[in-house]
Amino acid sequence: MLALSTLSSAPGRPAPYHHGDLRAALLDAADALLDAGGDGAVSLREAARMAGVSATAAYRHFADKDALLAALAARHFRDFGAALAAAPASGPAYVSFALARPGRFRLMFGPLLARARDHEELVAASGAAFDALVRARGSRAAAILAWAQVHGLAHLMLDGALPRDLDVAGLLTGPD
Amino acid sequence: MLALSTLSSAPGRPAPYHHGDLRAALLDAADALLDAGGDGAVSLREAARMAGVSATAAYRHFADKDALLAALAARHFRDFGAALAAAPASGPAYVSFALARPGRFRLMFGPLLARARDHEELVAASGAAFDALVRARGSRAAAILAWAQVHGLAHLMLDGALPRDLDVAGLLTGPD
Repeated sequence: MLALSTLSSAPGRPAPYHHGDLRAALLDAADALLDAGGDGAVSLREAARMAGVSATAAYRHFADKDALLAALAARHFRDFGAALAAAPASGPAYVSFALARPGRFRLMFGPLLARARDHEELVAASGAAFDALVRARGSRAAAILAWAQVHGLAHLMLDGALPRDLDVAGLLTGPD
Repeated sequence: MLALSTLSSAPGRPAPYHHGDLRAALLDAADALLDAGGDGAVSLREAARMAGVSATAAYRHFADKDALLAALAARHFRDFGAALAAAPASGPAYVSFALARPGRFRLMFGPLLARARDHEELVAASGAAFDALVRARGSRAAAILAWAQVHGLAHLMLDGALPRDLDVAGLLTGPD
């Protein structure tokens, strides 16, 4: 450890990270990997390489890949909850987000959410986003139905069962 | 070919298939493989083995694995269209079907539908099922919204983002 941190502050090496900065840098790197290749492309080792630190240093922040993915999902849920609170009628934005960032969409709303039920940061962030939706829709049932509708549209468009240029805003504000 | 069909009618071997029967037997075998392990578990070679014929005999019916999967999806869409026509308010049934038969659900409503746009049998069968939904809902827009809603519920429950014991019928017939 000592040798490593001495090395990394040698001339020609980037300055060593402060604790919170390295965590953020690893999350940034994981995010870039996710956008490029989905969650299969994310690894702690590669995120460490991109952040310019050893895998050992990365493991001090995240126990394993799922811990890294859960922290990344939590970060995105905080942004998402804030966006929902600011613009409650955000169905078309949800679908646009899914089509523009499929890796991030599948991370946030896919199987990780069930695998990471014990991850306090993710549970708090996703719970707060859902609460913002419940407030916007007036009830838990209405929130689930609204969420399911845009989630279904996003999946059907991502998978090609519905055309990608479907007028989602028109559909959601239509005569029904 | 001659040697093979002579062999397969020898004592102790099953009788050779009529043309249409082998096609159906291969689809039955593919369906069993799909239910057991998802579409990654389906192969023409394994379906042929289960039907008791050579891979060469199977390739006379299906050019490749996608052709086998598309014909299987078409078969399920015919049943699905008939079920929709008989019971138009079938949202809870769609979700139950997805949870009970995830492989079949992902086959019918996943990426294959886009890959197999040139497969006439599948296009006709899925189109007829969608038309039945449009008739039941009164418009194309209402059909898409109803479909997206139950599709989203099914995905969120399959992936564990919503609990599997959610009261779907209650939600869909609720006060909204």
